[in-house]
Amino acid sequence: MAEPADDLQATVAFFMELDRLKSVERRNFLADGSRRENTAEHSWHLGMAAVVFAPFAIEPIDIGRAVSMALAHDIVEIDAGDTFAYDEGEGAASKEAREQAAADRLFGLLPVERATYLRELWDEYERGDTPEARYVMAIDRMAPMLLNIAEGGSTWREHGITRDQVIRRNGPHVDLALPALWAHALEQLDAVADRLADPSTS
Amino acid sequence: MAEPADDLQATVAFFMELDRLKSVERRNFLADGSRRENTAEHSWHLGMAAVVFAPFAIEPIDIGRAVSMALAHDIVEIDAGDTFAYDEGEGAASKEAREQAAADRLFGLLPVERATYLRELWDEYERGDTPEARYVMAIDRMAPMLLNIAEGGSTWREHGITRDQVIRRNGPHVDLALPALWAHALEQLDAVADRLADPSTS
Repeated sequence: MAEPADDLQATVAFFMELDRLKSVERRNFLADGSRRENTAEHSWHLGMAAVVFAPFAIEPIDIGRAVSMALAHDIVEIDAGDTFAYDEGEGAASKEAREQAAADRLFGLLPVERATYLRELWDEYERGDTPEARYVMAIDRMAPMLLNIAEGGSTWREHGITRDQVIRRNGPHVDLALPALWAHALEQLDAVADRLADPSTS
Repeated sequence: MAEPADDLQATVAFFMELDRLKSVERRNFLADGSRRENTAEHSWHLGMAAVVFAPFAIEPIDIGRAVSMALAHDIVEIDAGDTFAYDEGEGAASKEAREQAAADRLFGLLPVERATYLRELWDEYERGDTPEARYVMAIDRMAPMLLNIAEGGSTWREHGITRDQVIRRNGPHVDLALPALWAHALEQLDAVADRLADPSTS
């Protein structure tokens, strides 16, 4: 109520800037295969996942904090773009520097108190050193994996990703925080495994 | 950890069902006018708004609860579809029954504890009788208004909505919970007001 008018204008400017995340395209498709997912709707799906998967987390989770982290963790893609999870080349090498610069600019649009709150959440996620950060990371890996499986693994096939690569890339994160979910996802993966790239011929 | 396997499968089924909200199209466009918004990305935008506008709320807000409410309040549109905010005809009349049936089915997919949690959040939002419900309702009205203004009011022009209708429809909700934001939005509305329908000729 006693907040300065400048702070309101800065907050509205940040809110309007967020709209651009709806135009950042990810590699994976929606479950029905109709189109690729964008990062804003992906972030909503993670926020909801953070609410509903909490009973299966291996550590007690502050759900409110995990949900906010899920919503905010990809905002940097407004400037830095999406980096494909299986990218081990130039994109992955420059990812950290691009995302740090993006975090500086984007969270810096906000009044200092909210900027600090969101930047600390984002830094915590990047460090992965709290139960909430590990939980959100697990969900972030699990979500596109389940969507990929549902629509037949076309993103994996497009990029020649093998079943072993899917397991190596996602398993350590999902299994660490949500082991029952990882066991379930592994079973589901078998449904598309025979359509994925064969490591012996790649 | 000791959750039954059935509960995990039910939660995954709910998570996959949520994916369909990304294909529910709203009337308003993104701020850049490139396409109409979908309800999943709209819900993400509201969740972020719930985090950053809290300092301007007229009542103290439990942010974690408000964010979860913002994410979940439109899930019923998976079954019930989006009802245009200015619709006063058949769509508006049948909205409540359609949405109640959708809430029964969708939240009913979850194990009982999470189903109850989300259903109570949704009922609270619909009743509008807590600070969090009033705050999320204000943000839900404010967000498409700011996007409409940014892209030139084309949804309002398409449907012949006048400046007075915009004010009557949104003002009471936004002003109740976020009065400083309403004053700001009113100023912004002047930028497009001369392109909106003229009530004297409609």
